[in-house]
Amino acid sequence: MSRYAPVPFPQVKLEGQFWHERLDTVLARTVPSQHKKLAEYGILDSLKLTSPPPPLRFPRHSNGFTVQVFWDSDIGKWIEAASYALAHRRDADIESKIEAAIDDLERAQAPDGYLNCWYLGREPEKRWTNLRDNHEMYNAGHLLEGAVAYFQVTGRRRFLEIMERFLDHIYATFGTGPGQRRGYDGHEEIELALMKLYYLTNERKHLDFATYLINERGQQPPHYFDIEREAREGGGDKRQPYVFPNYEYSQSHKPVREQDKVVGHAVRAMYLYTAMADLAAELRDAELKRACEVLWDDVIKTKMYVTAGLGPSAHNEGFTHDFDLPNQTAYAETCASVALIFWAQRMLHLDLDGKYADILELAMFNGALSGLSRDGEHYFYANPLESDGTPTRWEWHTCPCCTMNVSRLVASAGQYFLSTAENGVAFHLYGGIASEVEIAGTKVSLREVSDYPWSGDIAIHVEPKTPAQFELRLRIPGWCTEAKVSVNGEAVDVAGAERGYLTIDRQWQKGDVVSLDLPMPPMRLYAHPGVIMDAGRVALKRGPLVYCLEEVDNPGGRVQRIKLPRDAQLHSERSNLFDGIVTLKAEATTIDESDFHQLYRAMPPRETQSTLTAVPYFLWANRGQGSMVVWVPEAVG
Amino acid sequence: MSRYAPVPFPQVKLEGQFWHERLDTVLARTVPSQHKKLAEYGILDSLKLTSPPPPLRFPRHSNGFTVQVFWDSDIGKWIEAASYALAHRRDADIESKIEAAIDDLERAQAPDGYLNCWYLGREPEKRWTNLRDNHEMYNAGHLLEGAVAYFQVTGRRRFLEIMERFLDHIYATFGTGPGQRRGYDGHEEIELALMKLYYLTNERKHLDFATYLINERGQQPPHYFDIEREAREGGGDKRQPYVFPNYEYSQSHKPVREQDKVVGHAVRAMYLYTAMADLAAELRDAELKRACEVLWDDVIKTKMYVTAGLGPSAHNEGFTHDFDLPNQTAYAETCASVALIFWAQRMLHLDLDGKYADILELAMFNGALSGLSRDGEHYFYANPLESDGTPTRWEWHTCPCCTMNVSRLVASAGQYFLSTAENGVAFHLYGGIASEVEIAGTKVSLREVSDYPWSGDIAIHVEPKTPAQFELRLRIPGWCTEAKVSVNGEAVDVAGAERGYLTIDRQWQKGDVVSLDLPMPPMRLYAHPGVIMDAGRVALKRGPLVYCLEEVDNPGGRVQRIKLPRDAQLHSERSNLFDGIVTLKAEATTIDESDFHQLYRAMPPRETQSTLTAVPYFLWANRGQGSMVVWVPEAVG
Repeated sequence: MSRYAPVPFPQVKLEGQFWHERLDTVLARTVPSQHKKLAEYGILDSLKLTSPPPPLRFPRHSNGFTVQVFWDSDIGKWIEAASYALAHRRDADIESKIEAAIDDLERAQAPDGYLNCWYLGREPEKRWTNLRDNHEMYNAGHLLEGAVAYFQVTGRRRFLEIMERFLDHIYATFGTGPGQRRGYDGHEEIELALMKLYYLTNERKHLDFATYLINERGQQPPHYFDIEREAREGGGDKRQPYVFPNYEYSQSHKPVREQDKVVGHAVRAMYLYTAMADLAAELRDAELKRACEVLWDDVIKTKMYVTAGLGPSAHNEGFTHDFDLPNQTAYAETCASVALIFWAQRMLHLDLDGKYADILELAMFNGALSGLSRDGEHYFYANPLESDGTPTRWEWHTCPCCTMNVSRLVASAGQYFLSTAENGVAFHLYGGIASEVEIAGTKVSLREVSDYPWSGDIAIHVEPKTPAQFELRLRIPGWCTEAKVSVNGEAVDVAGAERGYLTIDRQWQKGDVVSLDLPMPPMRLYAHPGVIMDAGRVALKRGPLVYCLEEVDNPGGRVQRIKLPRDAQLHSERSNLFDGIVTLKAEATTIDESDFHQLYRAMPPRETQSTLTAVPYFLWANRGQGSMVVWVPEAVG
Repeated sequence: MSRYAPVPFPQVKLEGQFWHERLDTVLARTVPSQHKKLAEYGILDSLKLTSPPPPLRFPRHSNGFTVQVFWDSDIGKWIEAASYALAHRRDADIESKIEAAIDDLERAQAPDGYLNCWYLGREPEKRWTNLRDNHEMYNAGHLLEGAVAYFQVTGRRRFLEIMERFLDHIYATFGTGPGQRRGYDGHEEIELALMKLYYLTNERKHLDFATYLINERGQQPPHYFDIEREAREGGGDKRQPYVFPNYEYSQSHKPVREQDKVVGHAVRAMYLYTAMADLAAELRDAELKRACEVLWDDVIKTKMYVTAGLGPSAHNEGFTHDFDLPNQTAYAETCASVALIFWAQRMLHLDLDGKYADILELAMFNGALSGLSRDGEHYFYANPLESDGTPTRWEWHTCPCCTMNVSRLVASAGQYFLSTAENGVAFHLYGGIASEVEIAGTKVSLREVSDYPWSGDIAIHVEPKTPAQFELRLRIPGWCTEAKVSVNGEAVDVAGAERGYLTIDRQWQKGDVVSLDLPMPPMRLYAHPGVIMDAGRVALKRGPLVYCLEEVDNPGGRVQRIKLPRDAQLHSERSNLFDGIVTLKAEATTIDESDFHQLYRAMPPRETQSTLTAVPYFLWANRGQGSMVVWVPEAVG
């Protein structure tokens, strides 16, 4: 079987209502408003290297650190998102804004190729002295992703060439050769960006440097961050990374092939694993693939919120111990769920297994999309699964990484729907798309028509230019137990599905229609008893969407008072909310406070009959402030 | 009716097993080991003003603050606790250690009376420049409390005289007179200490300065902390208190008589209210009394944990919004519950109402005592009501305030049992005490015999030297609904109790025995539905003791998995644990994980029948690490 590869997003037209609305919002509102914010916060101006530099926007922490060191990455990520937007809709204004930023970057670049506006503008003599904390390669990675995207969309090479000059400088400076430093970045990111450049250019040096970075990470003794610190600060206690007492924070506590537990900063971890999976595929490295699989199992079986949020703790923006998934204080950074999508996509193409697509879909519709408001201009950095009403969406964030991670995700969402191999096409996501692909030497026009995720009633129109034999693989989602499939009205036995995909291998011709029925009864999910926060509680889910209770739909005080009897029937119902989303309803009981005049008393509170209304989690906090729960207490008779 | 006043602790002998054990532990282990810690941490040496001063034990925060500024208070508090210990049992070694500290303080004191070892030792030119943050009067207050206690126990005046010289310096520096600064401390404490000195000496100037401090607090514009900051740092943003953006943190956001919401740092608040209640009584100030009552109602009705823990948030070590009482992250600083006892005692003597004694008792047996380990040498600073097994007791703390707050509380616990008025005696707490008091001109020997809090079967032997008519007031605890009282076997109608006290006014003579039966059926408490964290949960209580489930008594994983059916009978049972405590048992169900192999699934977890065992909350975390809950999920049929 030949390997499947994703169909690039410009070849996948999002026609379904759900994605069309999100994409439109991101193009019309998110990308332009993000540029305004970059200007307003001085991030765009930071490229100009004015002398003297402006005062710090954000003061240094007592350890000297400031978030301004990663402003270059925000530029890179915005250019990437804006480029994806251009692929959908050319926009001269956006293009000129990208070009202006590239002008600045070109002027900023040092004669030897070095490019980092923090160091060049403020402390040029200190470049490459603190890879552990100061994100130089991370910034380079995001700029590179922006350059690759801009080139792919416009064909313009200038930004790419700037970055290639910078990379040549990096390749000369770091590595295992004589006179080179064996460094790598505390915040992984450049590794996956280099793989994108390698796929684009097919130049071996990029693959080689990504391989070097992955192989070098965590090697010791001596640990590179210790060597660097000693050079910077002299001897003494050599192990004192930024804030954290150990190298788990940056997944550099041991060589990556030996890592079997997901640890540390969640976004760093996901970016690392994404690159590891890329490399495992590219190098056919079974050991690296095995490490990816072990880490995947660890996170999915013990460390993932039901929304595909990752990293419970604000302290390290990351992972703690197994089953530690607090709801109200969940950090679950938007970036981490976005990056989980990246990783899941790589795993899926290492191994076409629906278990990866299930998580990709879960993260997409829940933990990632929740980061962007309905209006496209407000954000969640942390995505708690419970709220007392305090948190609200932000207009911007001191560290705006999540804002552009979600815009670049939505603007390129098309790439997660379809993959092709020499002799087949695989559908991973549904939602109304149209694409033209080449399979088995034939141009095949594909149109998937559905109102997914609101309905699982899906029709796929397959139109090969000339009749052709190839396999069409349909993902049967893990959440669906009663799927039905037919081709031109003739049933196909879904029991034949393997590892989440039903393969239909036949001679296809114009007019062929595959019908896929994915019934979406509302369901209850229970967490492993190790997740003590969710003991006695249920999460409500329908299809790929996790639901939540919001106060605005459940009047009468905070929603934490609502209990769902185990035998209560859940009903789904098309509503007038938003674009006509499907809500869930059930008979419930609500703890009543009207006769409760003390703080504590011996008599149980009264409970009243009520109707619970649940809405998709990703839409929470779009209608003012109020309480919210995902995990609803269940009353067991 | 004449006012009731507490019988000082040296006149109250603790004979009952419960208090005898705690007191013995504190005398034999806590007080001596605390001195060792003070030495080990350099706190004792800080009195010596060595030149140059030793390096900072704890680095300054980025804003310049270091916890070392309040080391004097630790000395004061240890001397206070050690003095109370001496009252029980003379100990030449402890006395010589106190004397050595006083020697150092005497040598450290400046010729003008100023005494603060931080400033004198490190930045003498900066004294009195930052009352907002640097605790100079707070330190003075704790030293003063130590001096008062040491004098009361030993009759030695030297320490008291040192402090009187310091106070004269303070009185000359601060006040409303010409050339004086209108300052007061960011951390209240000196106010209540001054009241102790006033009660001891009857010197009006101490009362006057306490009155000044209370009246001046929160007056504005201009706010004293702004004036001081401008003098220190120049103009600009004038409102930038240490860490916190407003003056609620230090209860100086408005004049105290206008305050009607309990806000800010919990210990500061409690110390303030204690002094306010003292002053309200002393000055017969109805407005101040009313403010105390309003604040009391606010905290008791909306902001107190069921354990009498106060202050949910670590961020401000204090209060947030109404009903915000998270369990696992509860800060509930030991000091705050200790200080609540101080305040409750003052309120009780303003107004002999059982509602104050109920809270005093609740805080004593739960939120305060939980701060000290069974072995007397380990501590909790924060007292969470739920644990996943991570927290453990500390041997010491960077800020050791709680350690000596709990030791001084236990060493002087006798003072909370009894009060006398000209013509009566009131019993507030029970637990086995003996005392000799003067009532109605007669010496009366009182012996209360009981195994309280384990049993509510209480006998009070009243032995006046000669027969005498006086009122004996018995607190009927708020938690007790079926109390029975008899005198010499003859029933007294408990329905006659008013505001929590049953008054027996008769001619007393030798051999009289009052029997008090306070049945203690285990009970369930429900929290106000506004406390969303406790919705669907119950706390278990028996008599004054709040119970909890600990993993060590409930094998099979973390105790968060245990549910208590609403109809399950609670049984109390004398156990072999500790000194033979009473445990609670009930049939329960436990969520089982043995067949749960995913993180989330659609099938509810199995539940198995189990027996729940609960132990008193104050004893938790004395038998190794493990999970704990106070609020147990309730299964409602």
